[in-house]
Amino acid sequence: MSDNVMNASDLEARLLEAPFNRWMGLSLLILADDVVEIGLTWREEMVSNPHLRVVHGGVLGALIDTSADFAVAAKLGEPVPTVDMRVDYHRPATPGDLRARARVVRLGSTLAVAETEVFDADGRLVASGRGTYFTAQARR
Amino acid sequence: MSDNVMNASDLEARLLEAPFNRWMGLSLLILADDVVEIGLTWREEMVSNPHLRVVHGGVLGALIDTSADFAVAAKLGEPVPTVDMRVDYHRPATPGDLRARARVVRLGSTLAVAETEVFDADGRLVASGRGTYFTAQARR
Amino acid sequence: MSDNVMNASDLEARLLEAPFNRWMGLSLLILADDVVEIGLTWREEMVSNPHLRVVHGGVLGALIDTSADFAVAAKLGEPVPTVDMRVDYHRPATPGDLRARARVVRLGSTLAVAETEVFDADGRLVASGRGTYFTAQARR
Amino acid sequence: MSDNVMNASDLEARLLEAPFNRWMGLSLLILADDVVEIGLTWREEMVSNPHLRVVHGGVLGALIDTSADFAVAAKLGEPVPTVDMRVDYHRPATPGDLRARARVVRLGSTLAVAETEVFDADGRLVASGRGTYFTAQARR
Repeated sequence: MSDNVMNASDLEARLLEAPFNRWMGLSLLILADDVVEIGLTWREEMVSNPHLRVVHGGVLGALIDTSADFAVAAKLGEPVPTVDMRVDYHRPATPGDLRARARVVRLGSTLAVAETEVFDADGRLVASGRGTYFTAQARR
Repeated sequence: MSDNVMNASDLEARLLEAPFNRWMGLSLLILADDVVEIGLTWREEMVSNPHLRVVHGGVLGALIDTSADFAVAAKLGEPVPTVDMRVDYHRPATPGDLRARARVVRLGSTLAVAETEVFDADGRLVASGRGTYFTAQARR
Repeated sequence: MSDNVMNASDLEARLLEAPFNRWMGLSLLILADDVVEIGLTWREEMVSNPHLRVVHGGVLGALIDTSADFAVAAKLGEPVPTVDMRVDYHRPATPGDLRARARVVRLGSTLAVAETEVFDADGRLVASGRGTYFTAQARR
Repeated sequence: MSDNVMNASDLEARLLEAPFNRWMGLSLLILADDVVEIGLTWREEMVSNPHLRVVHGGVLGALIDTSADFAVAAKLGEPVPTVDMRVDYHRPATPGDLRARARVVRLGSTLAVAETEVFDADGRLVASGRGTYFTAQARR
C-alpha cells in the first residue's frame, strides 16, 4: 500500500509544467513508494568548462532540487517551495543523459527534507544532495 | 593594491567560455578587490512554476555557484572545481534580471570558501549561499 | 535606532539558561543592531584529536548555531528552533578562547537565515557557517 | 569481504582518544562494511532549552560529524579533517541516549562525503546530516 497521492502520469505532467524542467529534458522514470527517479536529457548548453565539456554544477543542483521536491510532491499532491539545499559534487559529469534517484528523509507538517543521488549513463554517482521543503501550505 | 590576478575583460571572457553561463546571459558588472558582481539576464525558460512565474531554484543555485567560483577565480587566475554548495532561498524571484554579489570568505592552498547574495531588480535579496572550491590544482 | 527587542543583559541571561551554553562558557561580548558577538571559554574536554589538541568541530558548530540563533533572538525576543545548519572549517582551532560574530541575513515571518564567523584569540577566522531558523511561533 | 581496514576495538579506541567524544559518552555499537553505528550517552549538560529539556543542536551536530568521520575512518585507518558539514533537525531530542547510523556516500582520494542519521531511544529520526572530509593526507 502506497502513501503516494499522485500517480505517475499526474506527477510527470506537473513536472513538465515548469519551463526550466522542460529545458532540462526531464522525464519521470520511476515512481515508487520510497523513491522517485527522474531522467535528464543532455544538451550542449549544459556544458560548463568547454574544454573538459562537463555538465555545469548548477544544472546538477537543479536536477537534485527538482527530484527531491517531486519525491515530496508524490506524498503531498504538488511540488512545494525549496527553503534551502546542499549539493555535493563527486565526479565530473561528462556528456550524456543523467538519472536522479530521490527519497524523502523526513516529511513533517511544516517542513520536509528529501535527498537525491545523480548517476551518469555508466551508473557512477556524480553528485548528491538534499533540500529542505516548506510543506505547511500544501493542499492535503 | 589589489590581490586580483585577473582583470575584468579576462574574467568576463573566461566566464562566457561556459555555454551554460552564456545561456544564463551572464555578464561581469563589477570586479573589485573584495567583491565580484555578475548579472543574469531573464529568459522565459528559467521559469519554474508557470502560474507564479518565479525563477527556478536551480538557476539561482547556478548563479550563486558561478559567482562564488569567479570571486575565487579573480584571485587564482581561473575558475576551480566546486566541491559542494549550499543555497538559501529567501523570496520568490519574479521575472527580471538578477544581480549576484560574491566574496571570498577564505582562500586556502587546498580549499576555498566563497559566498554570494542574489538581488532582484528592486534590490531585494532573493537568495544567498556559499560554496567550497578545490584550489590545489589551480595554476599560480 | 535599533530594531533589537532584547537588551544585552536579557539576551545574556537567556543565553545562559541553556546548560550546554554554560558548559561552553559562553558570554555576550557585543549586542549591536547588525551584529551579536559571543565569546567561548576554552576547556580541555573540548579537544578532538588529543595529539594536535584542536577544538572538536562539533563545539565550533554549536558555537556557530548558538550565535546565529541569538542574532535572530535579539530581533524576536527569544531563541527559535534551528531547522538546519551548515558549518565550514577553515583552520584548526588550537587551545584558547574563541569569539563568534553573528548577523541576520534574512528575517522572515516563517523562517530566518543567520550566519556566524568564529575567530581565535589571534583574530584568525577558524570556522564559519549559517543556519535556518523557524520564526513562525516566536512571540512578537 | 569487507573493505574496512580497522576492527571494532581499534575504531572504538580511536574514537575515545578524543576528550569531547568521551564527554559525549560515545561508544561503538556496530561496525559493518556499509555502516557504523555509534551511541551517545545522555547527560544533563547537553540540554539546550531548560524548560523543554531538549538536546542542544550542537551536540547533535557533533554526533553527526563524528559518526560520519568514523565511517570514513573505518575505510582509511584514521579519522580525517572535516571540511564542512550540514545538519538537518527533524524533531526535538528529549532526554535519553541516542544512536547514530553513518555510511560513506563517496570515498575519493582527496575528499570523501559521509552521512549520518540520529535516532532517539524510541527509534525516531531526530536529526540527520552529511559532511565532507579531507582524505588526501590519510595513511593508506
